[in-house]
Amino acid sequence: MNPENAPAPSSPAPLSIQGDRLYRSLAALGEIGSYVDPHTGLTGVCRLALTAADGAGRRHVVAEMRAAGLEVTVDRIGNVFGRRAGRDDALAPVMMGSHIDSVATAGRFDGCLGVLGAIEVVRTLNDAGRTTRRPVVAAFFTEEEGARFGTDMLGSAVATGRIPLADAYAIRDRHGRTVREELEAIAFVGERSELLEPPHAYLECHVEQGPVLRAAGLDLGVVTGVQAICWHEVTIVGKSAHAGTTPMSLRADAGVAAARINLKLRELVASGRFGAELRATMGVIAPHPGLINVVPGRVTCSVDVRNPDDAILARAEAEVVAFYDEVAKLEGVSITHRRTARTPFVPFAERLRALITAAAAARGLSHEPIVSGAGHDAQELARACPAGMIFVPGEHDGISHNPRELSTSAQCENGVNVLLDTLLSLADE
Amino acid sequence: MNPENAPAPSSPAPLSIQGDRLYRSLAALGEIGSYVDPHTGLTGVCRLALTAADGAGRRHVVAEMRAAGLEVTVDRIGNVFGRRAGRDDALAPVMMGSHIDSVATAGRFDGCLGVLGAIEVVRTLNDAGRTTRRPVVAAFFTEEEGARFGTDMLGSAVATGRIPLADAYAIRDRHGRTVREELEAIAFVGERSELLEPPHAYLECHVEQGPVLRAAGLDLGVVTGVQAICWHEVTIVGKSAHAGTTPMSLRADAGVAAARINLKLRELVASGRFGAELRATMGVIAPHPGLINVVPGRVTCSVDVRNPDDAILARAEAEVVAFYDEVAKLEGVSITHRRTARTPFVPFAERLRALITAAAAARGLSHEPIVSGAGHDAQELARACPAGMIFVPGEHDGISHNPRELSTSAQCENGVNVLLDTLLSLADE
Repeated sequence: MNPENAPAPSSPAPLSIQGDRLYRSLAALGEIGSYVDPHTGLTGVCRLALTAADGAGRRHVVAEMRAAGLEVTVDRIGNVFGRRAGRDDALAPVMMGSHIDSVATAGRFDGCLGVLGAIEVVRTLNDAGRTTRRPVVAAFFTEEEGARFGTDMLGSAVATGRIPLADAYAIRDRHGRTVREELEAIAFVGERSELLEPPHAYLECHVEQGPVLRAAGLDLGVVTGVQAICWHEVTIVGKSAHAGTTPMSLRADAGVAAARINLKLRELVASGRFGAELRATMGVIAPHPGLINVVPGRVTCSVDVRNPDDAILARAEAEVVAFYDEVAKLEGVSITHRRTARTPFVPFAERLRALITAAAAARGLSHEPIVSGAGHDAQELARACPAGMIFVPGEHDGISHNPRELSTSAQCENGVNVLLDTLLSLADE
Repeated sequence: MNPENAPAPSSPAPLSIQGDRLYRSLAALGEIGSYVDPHTGLTGVCRLALTAADGAGRRHVVAEMRAAGLEVTVDRIGNVFGRRAGRDDALAPVMMGSHIDSVATAGRFDGCLGVLGAIEVVRTLNDAGRTTRRPVVAAFFTEEEGARFGTDMLGSAVATGRIPLADAYAIRDRHGRTVREELEAIAFVGERSELLEPPHAYLECHVEQGPVLRAAGLDLGVVTGVQAICWHEVTIVGKSAHAGTTPMSLRADAGVAAARINLKLRELVASGRFGAELRATMGVIAPHPGLINVVPGRVTCSVDVRNPDDAILARAEAEVVAFYDEVAKLEGVSITHRRTARTPFVPFAERLRALITAAAAARGLSHEPIVSGAGHDAQELARACPAGMIFVPGEHDGISHNPRELSTSAQCENGVNVLLDTLLSLADE
């Protein structure tokens, strides 16, 4: 018998996290940047990246990390790492993480589950007096959402070399403030190099942000990869004119052109020509001057198209771009677009998927492979090391980016227990 | 021979205004609130009602009135009246006027031509030492555009009793500031009663704000009336959700619903079912939260529909309202609307139209009857006294509410000369 494969002389008892403690920590972070929606009365979260609320959230999580005994460092793009020493402390660590920034109308789970789940895993190791062979790191990354500065996964993209630090620093929000200025304003420009030394592996537990797991009655999803994403910032220039007098034949209505593009996105999906998994959305529509009695002379709008298959996404994008030209001719406007994001399908490591699947099975949790519809930091980390994701189901059809976002305490506990099991497998390698 | 019909012993020589002086005064007022459009490089005007720029414009025009010897009074809604005494000074005056507030992206002529034209008429009378039998008043009215507080012809509607003063005072702009507060901020709450004593007649010279006169090569238009107008503020409530994950079947996209309404407006006009004169516009489109990766859960948008025929407008409005219900079902959203304006076709006095027509003919100016596509203070004054309007053609297809708005010095001069002639006929009655 090869001694490498022999059971350790004193094989430690199986560990489990404290679901209540995890859920309380999600509630506590959810208080920071919370607001009451005036229309629904629901409490949501607005912690747009590098705002004062994000700064407060960051300080809260750093305090939680330190309370769990982690050594905290911050890199030059504001990514935060809490490190727990390993027995062979010079080995590359196993990293767990996600993000705590949010869209303007968020719930408490998106991102936070992965960060607070990682800290809960550390607390569980502490409680059990368990030291892993490799160091363990709990991390959170800057501006994952892209909701403030327009580039999502910004922090993890800088950490893994896709976006140079100087480029990231220079990005401005819609008020003209730069990432650099706003990092300084909340005092999160760290001294650690922005270029991450490759971890041994990266694990992220996240809410599904979709309805699939809940509808299928599954306990969790083993994520196979992240679908391809394409973002356009579209500028339509027509001619502003008096709404009461200008004959329709003389109009160049940028708002009508935007409406046609929006309905084209809908039609692309409804046609079924791109399969059942195409997503297409116009989230931003900003007409100028935006007055009731003036034909909009200019509209800035956004196009977000996603598909698990790169080739299908490329075909859909080409059709959208061709349609810009068609609408420009039809409405007598000019239409230009800037591609603000284009990421291919990112597959996760087979080996990590197998470990996650085995852990779920060992705990008797029902699970299926699933493609991620949203972008995640794990897709950036996948450039640096083997990466894997665990999805937790969501109530209310898995709604996310919305105050109604909800995963139950049991759902969160299942996901983070599998995170713990997978981490233990990897950290003792 | 009836002595009433005999020529006056010393029949005064025919008068004409100074076109250069008028045009210079338009340029001077156009400097106040001017801005350079960053996209086109053109200089426009932004003097939204009761802003600091409007206050500065008002003080400038009051100074011009005083320099022309007019006695200036201000009423409680901020309407300004400059009075020139008549020989029988107790008789009801003949009033000329318009407005100097503007939309956010205006030119120099809309409204200002009627106000500065009235002052130029007074200067012409002064230069000739001519005293009319009736007093003459040059006036400008508050918030004609409705571009800031959402109710157009506000000042003239209060002056003629359609809108109670207290209601007008309580109207708020989108930042929550009331008309009353903003009138006080620019010190234009006057002491004169807001209820106007009926003038003998009201005359308004205005740019056409449309292409008809210019395309037909006419010198001016004799306005038969103002077309009927209907405004809706539409609120669409869907469900904000993650753009990357939420299947289309689970979406309630308020932005898509707004796009369908916008294209319905276009279709109503294009169908020809409501004749050739229907105008329909969506000028405001405000999605919430307005982020690239969030399906809009809520949109506020505007609908502006106009037609010279009340019955046709009513049919068009009914079809739009029925369509709201159709879209609400189709997209799974709720749609409510508030009618923020609904004015019927307002005909102008036959007698004033005849006087304007005769004056134009006597000066050898080509002219035709024309329906106004835009709302004007004259339609409010028409409730108090006989009212009439003279339209001046505009270059660039008569574009208005746009920095490219342009009437030439000769076009303006022709219109104000006919204003002068018509005033003289009425003021000696």
